Amino acid sequence: MARGKVFALTQGDPAGIGPEIALRAWLRRREEALPPFALIGSASFMTGLAERLSLDVAIAKTTPDTAAALFDTALPVIDIGHAVDAVPGVPSSRWAAGTIAAIDLAVRLIQEGRCTAVVTNPIAKHVLYEAGFAHPGHTEYLAVLAAGPGEPAPHPVMMLWSEELAVVPVTVHIPLAAVPAALTRELIVETGRIVARDLKERFGIARPRLAVAGLNPHAGEKGALGSEDEAVIAPAVAALRAEGVEAGGPYPADTMFHARARRSYDAALCMYHDQALIPIKALAFDEAVNVTLGLPFIRTSPDHGTAFDIAGKGVARADSLCAAIRLAGRLAAAEA
Amino acid sequence: MARGKVFALTQGDPAGIGPEIALRAWLRRREEALPPFALIGSASFMTGLAERLSLDVAIAKTTPDTAAALFDTALPVIDIGHAVDAVPGVPSSRWAAGTIAAIDLAVRLIQEGRCTAVVTNPIAKHVLYEAGFAHPGHTEYLAVLAAGPGEPAPHPVMMLWSEELAVVPVTVHIPLAAVPAALTRELIVETGRIVARDLKERFGIARPRLAVAGLNPHAGEKGALGSEDEAVIAPAVAALRAEGVEAGGPYPADTMFHARARRSYDAALCMYHDQALIPIKALAFDEAVNVTLGLPFIRTSPDHGTAFDIAGKGVARADSLCAAIRLAGRLAAAEA
Repeated sequence: MARGKVFALTQGDPAGIGPEIALRAWLRRREEALPPFALIGSASFMTGLAERLSLDVAIAKTTPDTAAALFDTALPVIDIGHAVDAVPGVPSSRWAAGTIAAIDLAVRLIQEGRCTAVVTNPIAKHVLYEAGFAHPGHTEYLAVLAAGPGEPAPHPVMMLWSEELAVVPVTVHIPLAAVPAALTRELIVETGRIVARDLKERFGIARPRLAVAGLNPHAGEKGALGSEDEAVIAPAVAALRAEGVEAGGPYPADTMFHARARRSYDAALCMYHDQALIPIKALAFDEAVNVTLGLPFIRTSPDHGTAFDIAGKGVARADSLCAAIRLAGRLAAAEA
Repeated sequence: MARGKVFALTQGDPAGIGPEIALRAWLRRREEALPPFALIGSASFMTGLAERLSLDVAIAKTTPDTAAALFDTALPVIDIGHAVDAVPGVPSSRWAAGTIAAIDLAVRLIQEGRCTAVVTNPIAKHVLYEAGFAHPGHTEYLAVLAAGPGEPAPHPVMMLWSEELAVVPVTVHIPLAAVPAALTRELIVETGRIVARDLKERFGIARPRLAVAGLNPHAGEKGALGSEDEAVIAPAVAALRAEGVEAGGPYPADTMFHARARRSYDAALCMYHDQALIPIKALAFDEAVNVTLGLPFIRTSPDHGTAFDIAGKGVARADSLCAAIRLAGRLAAAEA
């Protein structure tokens, strides 16, 4: 990790819990051994929020290059130049442009070499859609920003990571009924390839082991309980192995996640959202971190949403954000 | 629990780990505080198996009525009168008739009031199919046996139970692609009704709380990620509530299974096999028990299969079988 550089932490939806947990994470910077980060957002909003929540956080409006030196005594904020006056718990498309500007600025600062990695606070897609945002989600938008003008966006891969378990959903936010048709050999192979590469290059695992889950109960029981395990997933595992990726499966998903099984792999490739998220949230609810693989820069985020229902009430937990910041620090250190 | 009566433990597939873990469970009868059980199977086979595995278990061929008195000093076996000479790890349809006879006899002994409940060891459906068995599975066969001649079979409901978590898959052994069409409001309501009734009557929970999982990611996000949560599951939850069942949901499945969430319900109603089995096997792999609800008698079984690959090798674990026997004891005591 370059000395003197900070991590860029985006503000996220200002009516959600993101700004609040940013304040709380800064307060825990020493006990959690967090690397220095700067919030990309509105300095006046953050100052007001700290007052509203009676949190003893000094806000220092600053530039990327001086942020690290301030971090010990104040939360550095790199201002986006948008007025933000959100009420916690009351989402509004009025603040959407600022929310997007924070993401844009964070990526630009990384691309200019002025920040080390980006940690993103949660956004609410429906709020951004009302303001004309046209991307399927946060991660896809980051992929578009990561590409140069006219270049195709890289394929971003979502991994949920904790000390206990790392999982990658091959399909993500689609109806369960659409999963079988969406699962192709190519998609599984491309996802596995990206996971193996980033586990090696970013996580420093010399020979990453991937466990690939089956789609059907008991991984299809030789076709008796569905054809996809034999017709699609097994050939994808074979193709990955032919490329030199240490992949195994398809394994019955229900027996992949107990303690002894987890020791046999570095990441589980899961076929759909809940197959991946059920086990990691059952085992590591407060500590799981979302890390995006396949991008040219490091991006982590807490493993929860805007939580409008508890925003501003002083009960939001910063555990996952702290874990996201720590993981970004670890990955950036491995890269440096 | 009636004094002097035993639990009927079926032999299961003799080439699987069932007979072996039955021997091991008996050896652990004191430390595990197991209620007395009798194995329904072949006494000569069990005697040979104990020798082969060098397990110090005396086998006492007996009748149901004298079994309990013998239990402290020997494993009582109620003989099925079929020759069984299976080799561990080598399944064969030659022993199928005996495997089925043990199930038949166990149910008959319960119906005659001579045994208290049945604990079943695993069978292998494909082995039985080769011998002409025409039922979808073990549980469905028990339901047929439970009905009187000409009566419709009761609707059996599989629950996976542990001290940490109890889960019920509403659909079970069908391809994932078939799940959305198989999920009907009626099926969910009938399942929930049976679960609530048996939790009350058998488990002694005065007012059972059911948490009903959504089918799609984030329980469909108001239809954006699939229609079934709003169109099918929510009306089923409403119908259950209208009947006085304390049901809630549909909840996003990924946030239902962490420790804090689990404290809010007594059983989770899940929409498909892996949604139910992933969390319980992640959290309680060795201790989970399969209990069949909706039958006129108590039936539990270990939460694993025949495990032909490790049968006879002396490594099979009896934890789940011991838990199944203990749970049968607890339920029978509540009933008595």
